[in-house]
Amino acid sequence: MTRHRAAALDPSLYREIVRRALAEDLGWGDVTTDATVPGDARARATVIAVDACVIAGLTVADEAFHQLDPTVRLDPLRQDGDACAPGAPVASWEGRAGPLLTAQRAALNFLERLSGIATATRRMVEAAEGRARVVATRSTTPTLRALEHYAVEVGGGGRLRGALDGAVVIRRAHVRLAGGIRDALTRVAHVAHELPIEVEVQSGEQAREALEGGASRVLVVQPDPGVLASVLDASRGRIQVHVSGDFTPGEVAGLAKAGADLISAIGITRRAPWVALRVEFDPIP
Amino acid sequence: MTRHRAAALDPSLYREIVRRALAEDLGWGDVTTDATVPGDARARATVIAVDACVIAGLTVADEAFHQLDPTVRLDPLRQDGDACAPGAPVASWEGRAGPLLTAQRAALNFLERLSGIATATRRMVEAAEGRARVVATRSTTPTLRALEHYAVEVGGGGRLRGALDGAVVIRRAHVRLAGGIRDALTRVAHVAHELPIEVEVQSGEQAREALEGGASRVLVVQPDPGVLASVLDASRGRIQVHVSGDFTPGEVAGLAKAGADLISAIGITRRAPWVALRVEFDPIP
Amino acid sequence: MTRHRAAALDPSLYREIVRRALAEDLGWGDVTTDATVPGDARARATVIAVDACVIAGLTVADEAFHQLDPTVRLDPLRQDGDACAPGAPVASWEGRAGPLLTAQRAALNFLERLSGIATATRRMVEAAEGRARVVATRSTTPTLRALEHYAVEVGGGGRLRGALDGAVVIRRAHVRLAGGIRDALTRVAHVAHELPIEVEVQSGEQAREALEGGASRVLVVQPDPGVLASVLDASRGRIQVHVSGDFTPGEVAGLAKAGADLISAIGITRRAPWVALRVEFDPIP
Amino acid sequence: MTRHRAAALDPSLYREIVRRALAEDLGWGDVTTDATVPGDARARATVIAVDACVIAGLTVADEAFHQLDPTVRLDPLRQDGDACAPGAPVASWEGRAGPLLTAQRAALNFLERLSGIATATRRMVEAAEGRARVVATRSTTPTLRALEHYAVEVGGGGRLRGALDGAVVIRRAHVRLAGGIRDALTRVAHVAHELPIEVEVQSGEQAREALEGGASRVLVVQPDPGVLASVLDASRGRIQVHVSGDFTPGEVAGLAKAGADLISAIGITRRAPWVALRVEFDPIP
Amino acid sequence: MTRHRAAALDPSLYREIVRRALAEDLGWGDVTTDATVPGDARARATVIAVDACVIAGLTVADEAFHQLDPTVRLDPLRQDGDACAPGAPVASWEGRAGPLLTAQRAALNFLERLSGIATATRRMVEAAEGRARVVATRSTTPTLRALEHYAVEVGGGGRLRGALDGAVVIRRAHVRLAGGIRDALTRVAHVAHELPIEVEVQSGEQAREALEGGASRVLVVQPDPGVLASVLDASRGRIQVHVSGDFTPGEVAGLAKAGADLISAIGITRRAPWVALRVEFDPIP
Amino acid sequence: MTRHRAAALDPSLYREIVRRALAEDLGWGDVTTDATVPGDARARATVIAVDACVIAGLTVADEAFHQLDPTVRLDPLRQDGDACAPGAPVASWEGRAGPLLTAQRAALNFLERLSGIATATRRMVEAAEGRARVVATRSTTPTLRALEHYAVEVGGGGRLRGALDGAVVIRRAHVRLAGGIRDALTRVAHVAHELPIEVEVQSGEQAREALEGGASRVLVVQPDPGVLASVLDASRGRIQVHVSGDFTPGEVAGLAKAGADLISAIGITRRAPWVALRVEFDPIP
Repeated sequence: MTRHRAAALDPSLYREIVRRALAEDLGWGDVTTDATVPGDARARATVIAVDACVIAGLTVADEAFHQLDPTVRLDPLRQDGDACAPGAPVASWEGRAGPLLTAQRAALNFLERLSGIATATRRMVEAAEGRARVVATRSTTPTLRALEHYAVEVGGGGRLRGALDGAVVIRRAHVRLAGGIRDALTRVAHVAHELPIEVEVQSGEQAREALEGGASRVLVVQPDPGVLASVLDASRGRIQVHVSGDFTPGEVAGLAKAGADLISAIGITRRAPWVALRVEFDPIP
Repeated sequence: MTRHRAAALDPSLYREIVRRALAEDLGWGDVTTDATVPGDARARATVIAVDACVIAGLTVADEAFHQLDPTVRLDPLRQDGDACAPGAPVASWEGRAGPLLTAQRAALNFLERLSGIATATRRMVEAAEGRARVVATRSTTPTLRALEHYAVEVGGGGRLRGALDGAVVIRRAHVRLAGGIRDALTRVAHVAHELPIEVEVQSGEQAREALEGGASRVLVVQPDPGVLASVLDASRGRIQVHVSGDFTPGEVAGLAKAGADLISAIGITRRAPWVALRVEFDPIP
Repeated sequence: MTRHRAAALDPSLYREIVRRALAEDLGWGDVTTDATVPGDARARATVIAVDACVIAGLTVADEAFHQLDPTVRLDPLRQDGDACAPGAPVASWEGRAGPLLTAQRAALNFLERLSGIATATRRMVEAAEGRARVVATRSTTPTLRALEHYAVEVGGGGRLRGALDGAVVIRRAHVRLAGGIRDALTRVAHVAHELPIEVEVQSGEQAREALEGGASRVLVVQPDPGVLASVLDASRGRIQVHVSGDFTPGEVAGLAKAGADLISAIGITRRAPWVALRVEFDPIP
Repeated sequence: MTRHRAAALDPSLYREIVRRALAEDLGWGDVTTDATVPGDARARATVIAVDACVIAGLTVADEAFHQLDPTVRLDPLRQDGDACAPGAPVASWEGRAGPLLTAQRAALNFLERLSGIATATRRMVEAAEGRARVVATRSTTPTLRALEHYAVEVGGGGRLRGALDGAVVIRRAHVRLAGGIRDALTRVAHVAHELPIEVEVQSGEQAREALEGGASRVLVVQPDPGVLASVLDASRGRIQVHVSGDFTPGEVAGLAKAGADLISAIGITRRAPWVALRVEFDPIP
Repeated sequence: MTRHRAAALDPSLYREIVRRALAEDLGWGDVTTDATVPGDARARATVIAVDACVIAGLTVADEAFHQLDPTVRLDPLRQDGDACAPGAPVASWEGRAGPLLTAQRAALNFLERLSGIATATRRMVEAAEGRARVVATRSTTPTLRALEHYAVEVGGGGRLRGALDGAVVIRRAHVRLAGGIRDALTRVAHVAHELPIEVEVQSGEQAREALEGGASRVLVVQPDPGVLASVLDASRGRIQVHVSGDFTPGEVAGLAKAGADLISAIGITRRAPWVALRVEFDPIP
Repeated sequence: MTRHRAAALDPSLYREIVRRALAEDLGWGDVTTDATVPGDARARATVIAVDACVIAGLTVADEAFHQLDPTVRLDPLRQDGDACAPGAPVASWEGRAGPLLTAQRAALNFLERLSGIATATRRMVEAAEGRARVVATRSTTPTLRALEHYAVEVGGGGRLRGALDGAVVIRRAHVRLAGGIRDALTRVAHVAHELPIEVEVQSGEQAREALEGGASRVLVVQPDPGVLASVLDASRGRIQVHVSGDFTPGEVAGLAKAGADLISAIGITRRAPWVALRVEFDPIP
């Protein structure tokens, strides 16, 4: 199996969202735990993979436990990016039993969702066999993009732009409103030193037009084989080709072999099911 | 087909999250649209269902467009809760072309995700055929629970508690730490006037213990058939039975027929794929 | 005297409000203390009850001191819920003299207000002699409800709903707009599994109508004796009776004896004077 | 009766707090109103004084209604600062029935609390008969000080400092830590051009010391008659005297006649009961 | 004079900062204006350039006036990017006199600061005569970068990265910690598809090393002429050269002629004096 | 050289702004440092003055480093208010190399800007030779006023009002709208006990009118010598004179000698260039 760099995730990117997630889940307090669990009870919560998965989001889950009990201690049995077999222990937290129970759902909601994205991404990355780079789109859960793009990175993927300010991407509607590919490219020339410029095309001819107009990448969206072939033919070695669509791993493998440089397999954020994790909860006497 | 009440969604529940979603997606601005689209261009964006779906989140999507262009006008061809056939137009927005293009992805991220949940829920609700109520769990995307529970409601489901303060739910870990079902129930007796009290059980005997201790509901999690039968047998007519697990529509139908009152089919939020919607973008001369 | 459970108050419920209260009170800084108190001076601040009271809010006051000096140490001579005689020491904080002086008013503003509510509540709870439960209303200081309801709980009371989402409460205006008690109850039937349903009534006949329509509680507001008797008569043993009004302890005692199950004595939040506490400030050499 | 200037209250001081108050009160929505009130029903809500009172906070209450229904229309039958007899109509709002019902409690929580403070203040101001100025303290509800000080102003009072940055106030503890009144005054001399300087004193001799050290005001807290006389005697015509305590209107009258310039009657915020207002709700056909 | 594109500035980038600036400047209200200006007085405020300048920030200033008076009307006599001679009228606002006076300082604080940056930038851009692009650095006022970079754009400049996520920039310290230019470049190879990669160099040899390692730009900081010549020589036509330092317009002209592609003249944000604007205030009868 | 009190700066005044500044500068993370710097590398960053300066903002800079690495340790070689010669070491931080590099620009942006203001202020304060007090205006960077006024204080200056609520300042426009100086003063008489009252005047006669109307200060803005002399003549010994304008140190010296009590030299915030600081970065083996 390929070795994947563990991407970095600055705490400033999730502290506030974890705080809001806990506020959302606690409301005015966990009446059940407050009433039934003795204040001094201690416990260990061990998170275990139910199905095979790639884990992502351990520090985010840890933050959730820590915000309710600063003395909680994480024993990270795996790192973000590690593949886990069914039944494998992933991490264990030890601390006051009450806060562990209260924070558990919020912590898992992050961990299961992010691991789901990392798992789906890894599948696509392995299908591409290093021939093309799998990248994330902007189809992410509102307000969680930094975390979801991080999970894509943990799965071995990348991203072309995090937000609309990160690259020029001239879609069909822009082309129409600007009066053509050439005109659109002229209008963005002043940022050409500063940002990559990508143009959506529907034919090899348009790809050539983009190339001549100064674009750094062409984009083809859910292309049929003929269009793809003609764009690849026009572009090869001269300009990067980015293909986007709702692809299966098999289709990703095919696109990579055909010569796509970058592949947006949109399902890695739009249809990745949450990874199922279960918690073993052991009181510490 | 059953008629479903259109649930209400107060704007105060989504205004801020839409604001954050736009800030996240714009970063320091949509360089592409700002450069290529004339400031006075106007357009109509029509959203069209790619696959069959139940639509949810139209007012949220509308809020996204409105925050960038207060003069934008929504023509809601469907209402939240309506079933749409493939190819059916869902809604159309008319306004300044620039803001329509800039806000489009943020608007669709809400609409596609929420419609995905409503669609998955509707399938379960129809499987239950009115015999049991399908309810949402707390396995929701962090900070988006109000919206995701709303989508469940749009799909015909309900929810037992929005947050940990909304009901007493005594899980196995609470029982162990409190020293037994009876002791746990004693400790929550002071809120019995005020909140429903649910107890997780693994047998008919435990269900009887919960019933005698004053519980208003028993919960069985991913039960095997024997356990379920024994709990249902002990509970019928005396206490509500809530069954939770990762069920298919067929399993939901079976549980409803067997006598479950409430069913948490966790997949409606954890594995619902986004609904695919496409946008037709027409410049208005 | 009855023993009252010490209610739990999660720090996430008050950290932010304490932060805002300090910001409000400091403005751009405590010019007096900054200029007159040596930076290394240490002191002990002992809070003492001026009048008899029930104390509530110690952890909130502690948070105020801690936010300005993380090394401050609380010696909690009493717990929330303890009754204090005039002159009794309540708590003492030891730390840097400057921050103790700067945070003092903000800390006391919480402690004196919350103790006032707990004290007023305890009086009503003792008058009810366990026959009825004294509950809080939504007449609370804007944005401080979680804290004020907590103080009611510390005083021995409870709450029927924290917010408008916590129960169905059909008031007269709803009845009128829905076209009658029966129609109103029909319209809320879909949440009957999930939320308690309370109906305001003005007669025994209306109470029967509510009962038959599926309500779980009837509410009578500031009732005259005849109305109350007729409602109690129609309800007894079949449906809970909730009475709300601006009652004295004597009136609460009477209502409890007459058979009310739940009593909202609105004065516990609306007219409870702040408890007077004074601070003895001792420099530590 | 004296004519009182209607103080100004910038919307930026309450918009956010009203937003939070509504969020707190709505939770995830007003299930009752959403289910029972037809979406197109319109109504008029008329607020009526139950007891005699001075009204304060009409624009704040109006903001609450407006945030839920921007089309609501206020008919202000009285202005902030007007005295209302029992039974007098105060204001009426006309708009969509649902939002009127949903926002009503949040709106009244502001109006009843602020009117309570204005009413209590007016009583003190009238007792002082213009001889002394009644001023607010920092004993205000955490995070609501701007509104509560405004209510004091509506009642005819003033304030010496809104926050700790607004004046130098050297209390006994500061004097001890600085090593005496003279030393404390020396340490604050650099801001003497910029801020008033007030010193707490316990005798005429101390008042003279403050005067000579450059103070602009002396403060006596809950003084016995002998001390007050000696301080007034030492100060008259040379330095302002500020008296603070939990005074009755009669005591305020006495202090004003005795020569106090400024009186903090702390009960105007600490023990003012909410004004009782009732709402008449009329559907508009 | 060159014609400069008017850059776009989405309101979501400044609405909140204007709100905070007003809150900061108002505190608990503009006591002077509230007391002295009749509520119904109307006025026109005309902003006039004292010295020659390039104007930037008109919509931000307008937002400040609008937040206090939604009916205020801007008459924009100039556009952002226009050069103004001394004494030239820049813009005029008409509305209620009170809010115009209250918001004036906050509005001008934005307009004068941003115009100062635009003016300083324009001077550098004109010195470069189109041979090199003048770009902004990250030396900007904390939390105002979006606005200050916008002002640079208005002045005719650009930016290489808005934040640390927008480009790889390998400075000397990174090189040392990574063990050399080549090693540092290897470590960032996985994002080479996605982000520009810039390396700080001190010689032509290092520039060649960067070029061979896959960098897209070299950076030379405050270089002496020999170093600059050697880097330019090694780079010309093969890799972009970015020069950064505290340059005068004359130095910028020289660098541009010598062949620099991009020039960070750090003074455009670090030493640009505010533009002096004065306001003529005319009551409207 | 005069000894200047080190002003106090409560962390609550900058914690949030530092958090926002870091968020602004990091975006979705420091890709360069994350990729090139080993996670366990440690380093020392020493900040060194390039030019002579007065340092201000050390605790703010320290907060920036601490928010990214709570274990970082500051060695404060100088205190806020100390004058530094060119080449003098100012402070050094030791901690993990990655966060030190990532936070460095945000930390310096505060330190260089605030030191620039302190340095410019000190120059004016020394020119005034103790004869007049140099005070800050409200021409400060939006949302950073607390910090910038603090820097003025560090430089030896003061402030007359932090916000519009801190003093009555009747400018020419207020006088016109109120119908004259006398009328304006009458309208603010009710706050005369509570706030200083300043009136802008253009002649000795107006100064006398202000004095008789109860003002505590007169303000002359950018006066010509004759006007200034006449105002000083009318005011001396009877009322404070505050002069405001864009003065050089020499002009400040002249004004102070001529008898001005308070001088607003607006350039200390409007044209103070940032102090240049450089960082020596040493890996710790």
